[in-house]
Formats: sequence, structure tokens, C-alpha cells
Amino acid sequence: MPRRGPFEDLLVVDLTRVLAGPFCTLLLADLGARVIKVEHPDRGDDARAIGPFVEGRSAYFMSLNRGKESIALDLHEPADREVFEALVARADVLVENFRVGVMGRLGYGWAALHARYPRLVYAAVSGFGQTGLAAMRPAYDIVVQALGGIMSLTGHPGSPPTRVGTSIGDIAAGLFTAVGIGAALHHRARTGEGSQVDVAMLDSQVAILENAIARFAATGVAPAPLGSRHPSITPFQAFAAADAHLVIAAGNDLLFARLCQALERPELPEDERFASNDLRSRNADALQAELEEALRPHSVAHWLERLAGAGIPCAPIQDVAQVLEDPQVQARNMVIRAVDAVAGAVTMAGNPVKLSGFPDPTERPAAPELDEGRERVRRELGLDGSQAAGSREGGGS
Amino acid sequence: MPRRGPFEDLLVVDLTRVLAGPFCTLLLADLGARVIKVEHPDRGDDARAIGPFVEGRSAYFMSLNRGKESIALDLHEPADREVFEALVARADVLVENFRVGVMGRLGYGWAALHARYPRLVYAAVSGFGQTGLAAMRPAYDIVVQALGGIMSLTGHPGSPPTRVGTSIGDIAAGLFTAVGIGAALHHRARTGEGSQVDVAMLDSQVAILENAIARFAATGVAPAPLGSRHPSITPFQAFAAADAHLVIAAGNDLLFARLCQALERPELPEDERFASNDLRSRNADALQAELEEALRPHSVAHWLERLAGAGIPCAPIQDVAQVLEDPQVQARNMVIRAVDAVAGAVTMAGNPVKLSGFPDPTERPAAPELDEGRERVRRELGLDGSQAAGSREGGGS
Repeated sequence: MPRRGPFEDLLVVDLTRVLAGPFCTLLLADLGARVIKVEHPDRGDDARAIGPFVEGRSAYFMSLNRGKESIALDLHEPADREVFEALVARADVLVENFRVGVMGRLGYGWAALHARYPRLVYAAVSGFGQTGLAAMRPAYDIVVQALGGIMSLTGHPGSPPTRVGTSIGDIAAGLFTAVGIGAALHHRARTGEGSQVDVAMLDSQVAILENAIARFAATGVAPAPLGSRHPSITPFQAFAAADAHLVIAAGNDLLFARLCQALERPELPEDERFASNDLRSRNADALQAELEEALRPHSVAHWLERLAGAGIPCAPIQDVAQVLEDPQVQARNMVIRAVDAVAGAVTMAGNPVKLSGFPDPTERPAAPELDEGRERVRRELGLDGSQAAGSREGGGS
Repeated sequence: MPRRGPFEDLLVVDLTRVLAGPFCTLLLADLGARVIKVEHPDRGDDARAIGPFVEGRSAYFMSLNRGKESIALDLHEPADREVFEALVARADVLVENFRVGVMGRLGYGWAALHARYPRLVYAAVSGFGQTGLAAMRPAYDIVVQALGGIMSLTGHPGSPPTRVGTSIGDIAAGLFTAVGIGAALHHRARTGEGSQVDVAMLDSQVAILENAIARFAATGVAPAPLGSRHPSITPFQAFAAADAHLVIAAGNDLLFARLCQALERPELPEDERFASNDLRSRNADALQAELEEALRPHSVAHWLERLAGAGIPCAPIQDVAQVLEDPQVQARNMVIRAVDAVAGAVTMAGNPVKLSGFPDPTERPAAPELDEGRERVRRELGLDGSQAAGSREGGGS
């Protein structure tokens, strides 16, 4: 049997909804883990109701949950709790992104589960973390983007606040959680002991602020948004050509000199305003005006060919349609598809973690229908499938 | 001896420079790994020369390399190659972010190292990945932000291109690499076999596009930037109050009704333009005008108290100074410091991966001086320290 991925021996019980948690468990599934989504019987993961829809199916849900299985359980119902506990007893990893306290009230907090299943890795993704006074507050992507500082760095000077155009508040947290799960599994392999992984969306935003904290720490001045510019490397930004913008990254004196040659402005590196990267950064507006004057006569296509030929890093600003057609993106298998029984083939992003010795298929299993795995999972757990279906109807019988 | 972290048994040889790679190995170090930076003897990691500086030390470098060790090796010199190979022979993980082909020309490509050190996990972070026609091209953050689509989604409609205000092109790749290393270590624990982890900055950008690909796949229309708005949840954005902006996330009918009550505009949910989330998203500009009219008389502080009291998720847009003062950020130990011998105490972001049973210190070891670990590491490898220092001077002797 072909290897699925490095996590192919793992069973993950996935209680997560919408984005941060499902993004994490998508990565685990892409890396070979068996991920069983435990969804609420009424409507399942909220993301099933988030558009856009294809033939009534959420393209959003389908892209975040490909390759997972689904079982619907009401964790307040004794019969369903029995199934859940049998599942957790076999699981290697549990991931949840409920509001803090929900799992504890169900009797499934970290302390309780660790006592019963000492090998279980328990990962909790939350808005503000499991500790601190704000732990109970709900969080959403826009809330942590605002609180965590990234919005104060993104946008053009003087423009209204700008959100990062993807839900980086959720996605960063999902990624850090996957890193934590890998670390906890390593510790378990050595010691047999499971750990709690506690990742907050807000903490994750702080962790990706990069040089902004260093700049503030060094200068005492809170950094402001700079449009497309880099704070300390110039030119390293978008410039207008005749028909559109392109980005140019000429971050050292050699590349800057080559750029000025290619733009037929060989005198610019001699200009005292532009003689070093530091000076170019201080006089970035003046430099932008000079460079755009030189770029204006020709198209982006013209300049990309000319600058790339001169060894100057540059690129067009691609929209999503162009990204999906990009030959390198396709060559890397980053555009994949899953065939849904109702919606048909759905295009989605591939897995960027490429590992030698493991397959990286262009076609992946589709996202599950709500509760599609009920009988299969119950059978595997040694619970009687037919009785189970009955007991669901009967509630807590 | 207290436990350092789940990776405390690991030795990581770190050939990376500047950002994507060092961000990955920072995470490994924060999780307990011993990380030995192998730097070029002339100047070391380029980030040492990137400002801002505190007492001549790069705050940028210090924040990305805390808790690592350093040895300067010229991998073209036989004596230094001997040290490097002895180090790799003991290492669990090697991380590099050279341009594709550099390691192969040194004789240290994946195939060569895997043959000699079959247990070694070899992680390569690059702009475009190890495969495909574009593999050899250099990449920089702004280049992959442009090519990968996130710039096409970020900013205000009609504004010039906007970069995400942190180097998300590098950081996302560093995170996916850390996930891949965790997965490869898991596989090694089971089989004894090391893997190559191949992560591209461009692929990583595609993987974080989130719902933009689903929207394009469902509608055929490439998504455009929306300022601070969410594409399909409304209101979920920044609004102007009397003195500044705040964000409000009232993403369902119940929260929207509560919001309108709190703003003393209880009739708005009855307005046919705003009767459902879908209608609110289609009429987002009109809704923004109505809500900002209601918000305008009072300050952000007034509204935060009032809205939070009504259970409506909301937040101020914090700059970096405010982030570092945020009580929850501090309670979560996300503001830490490392004491540099020259620059003194330097503030930096903490580790967002919180694990039960492991310490999360507020004070961390500083970043290394170039080559500070030379004698220590050589001694540990059983190489003669004094002779080594001599042989460096003598080149390839």
C-alpha cells in the first residue's frame, strides 16, 4: 500500500469549526493523518453555511475539509458521548477551537482527558488563549488583526484601516498549532506522555509582527503603514508602469545600479539622495518618482522581460485567476482538485509542505458530507452501528 | 535539570539567513532544540547588517536569532568542511535557505547528505521550491506577495498596490517548514528514515489565500481588495468613530440586531437592504454609512465599552506600542526580552506555541555573536579547538 504521508499512523479527532482549527487539521490530513471531524448533528461545521456555493455546497467548506471524515455527535447526549469517548480513546491527537471553558463544561477539558488518556495530544486554538483575563472573550479574525498590530502596519499612509486580504488571524494560529502538535508528538514518542498545545490567535499575530517590534524597541516610534514599501529596504515595492504596477526588489547597491542601468537612468546611484540603501529608504518618495518616470513609457510585460534579463528580482502583481494559471504554481502541484458528489470538481490550493518519499496527488478526496462516516466509525470502534442509528433518534437513550 | 521544550533532544544545523529560515529555526529553538547557526566567516547572516540598530547591534537579527549558537564556517575550505560534516553527522535536522543548487554544488545536496546520514531531516526553504522551471530564480518577500495573489486582495478598492505590512511571504514559508520538520521527525521516529522537506515561499502564499480561491472557483471572478471588509461577512470591518477607527464583528443576525440596539438604530435590521448577512454584504457601503453616522458622535473608548457590554465582538486598532502594553498579550508572555552583551535588554515577541509541562520564560538567551561557539562546538565534536583556530587562519590546511 502506498504511503500517504508521515502522519499516516495518526488518528485525529477534530472538533474544530470554520477556519483556524480546520486549517490546522487540513495540514494534518494532507500529511497523511486520518482526521475525523466531530460535528454538531443540527447543522455541522458553520463553514458549511458560508458561501460562495457551488450547487448548494460551500466551496469554502469543501476547500478546508477535503480528505477528512465526518461523524455527527451531540456531546450532551450520553449515547453520543459514548461514541466520542471510544474515539478519543483510540486517538493520537484532539484539536478543538471552542470558546475557552466549553470543553471543560462537557467534562472534556485538558485535565480530565489527560487523566484518562495520558498519551493524547490535546490542541486548543482560541482567540486569546486558555489563560489570562481575556481568555473568555470571543475573537474573530478582524478582532485579532486589529488588536495584534498587523492592521497598524498594512495600508497606505493616511488611508482608512486596511485588513490583510486573507484571514491571517486564523491562518497563522492554525499554522502555529500544527507546529505545536508536531512538537508534542515528538515529546510523546520519547516519553509516552501527551501534552496540551495552547495557541491563541492574538499571540500568533504578535509572533508574526517581524521587524515591527524590533523597530519600535530600537526607536520608540510605533511603525506606520507604508503602502507597498518595505520599511528598511529600498527600492522594494510596487511601481506604476504604463498599464499597471509591477514590484521590483533591488535591495542592495549592486542590484540598484543594475536597475538604474536597465531603466536608462545610470546617474541615479550617484545622486546623493540615493547613494546607499539607508539614504534610499529615507528618500523613498523621491526615488519612487524618479523610477516611475523612467517606467512610465512602457508596459509591465516590457519591464518584466527587460529587468529579469538584467537579473533584477521583479514580478507582476497577480490576481487569483493568474495565480492559478502560473506555470510554477502548477508545476509545484499547488492547484489541486477534489471531486464532490454534488458540486463536481472543485479547485483548491495544494499542500505546500513537500516531503521526499510521499505522494503529492493533484486529485484529493472530497470533503465529507455531514455524518457520512457514522456507521463506518462506529463499526471500527466495536459499537453496534444499527443500534447507534436508533439511539440517535431517541436522544439520550 | 528542567525541561527546555519538546525538541530538547534535537540538534539543528542552521544554514539559513535573514528571515524565512531563521524564523523556522527560531521556533525550533523556542521549542527546546539546540540550534547551531553556521554563518559565513566574512560577515555572517546578512540580517546582522539590517537595521534598526541598538548600540550597533541589529535589533532585527537579535529578535530572530535569540537562543541560537553560532559557528563561522567557509564551506569551500576543507578544514571548515570537516567541522561541518562532523556537525551534520550528529545533527537531527539541517535547515537551509540558499538559492536552489548552492548546496548541491558544495556537495551537500539532499541526495548526497541522505546517502551519508540517512536519519538526517533536511529542510530547504526557497523562493520557488526545488522543482519546476522557476526553481533557480531568486525570490524576495515582495516578489512572492505579488506573484502569490495576496497583494491583489489587500488594500482599498482603487488604491495603489498594498503589501501586507509584515513579511508574510517569508514568515508563512518558515511556518510551513516547521510543520514539515515536525512531520519528518515523526516519520523518522517510526522508521529511522530522514526526509527532505521542500517548502517554497510562493507555494506558501498560495496555501494561505483562504477563501479567495474558493470564491474564484465558484464565481469565475478574481476577488479584489476590500479595504478592511470581509468578503462574505458583514459587518466585519473597521468603522470611523469620533476620534479614530474601531473594528466590529457582528457576523450573524443576532449580533447585528444587538449592534443596532446598542447604536440606537433598532430599525436597521428591518431595512430590506440589511435583512440578512448576504444582503448586508451586497449593500456594505450603504450599511457602513448608516453605522458610521451612528458611531460618529462618540469616541472609540465609549463604543468599545458599550459594545463589549452588549456582547458584540469589537476592538481598537492597536499600534505596536499598544500591542506591547496589552494586558492579555503580556499575560500570555508574548512580550519577552533577551539581554545582549552590548545592546542590553531587547524586547521581542514571545513564542505563541504554549505547551503544558514546559517552561515559557520571559527572559531568553540572547542571539549569538558571530562564531561565538567555535571552540565549544569543536571540542564537543572531538576536534582540537586550538588547532582549529589556527587552521582557519591558514585556509585549507
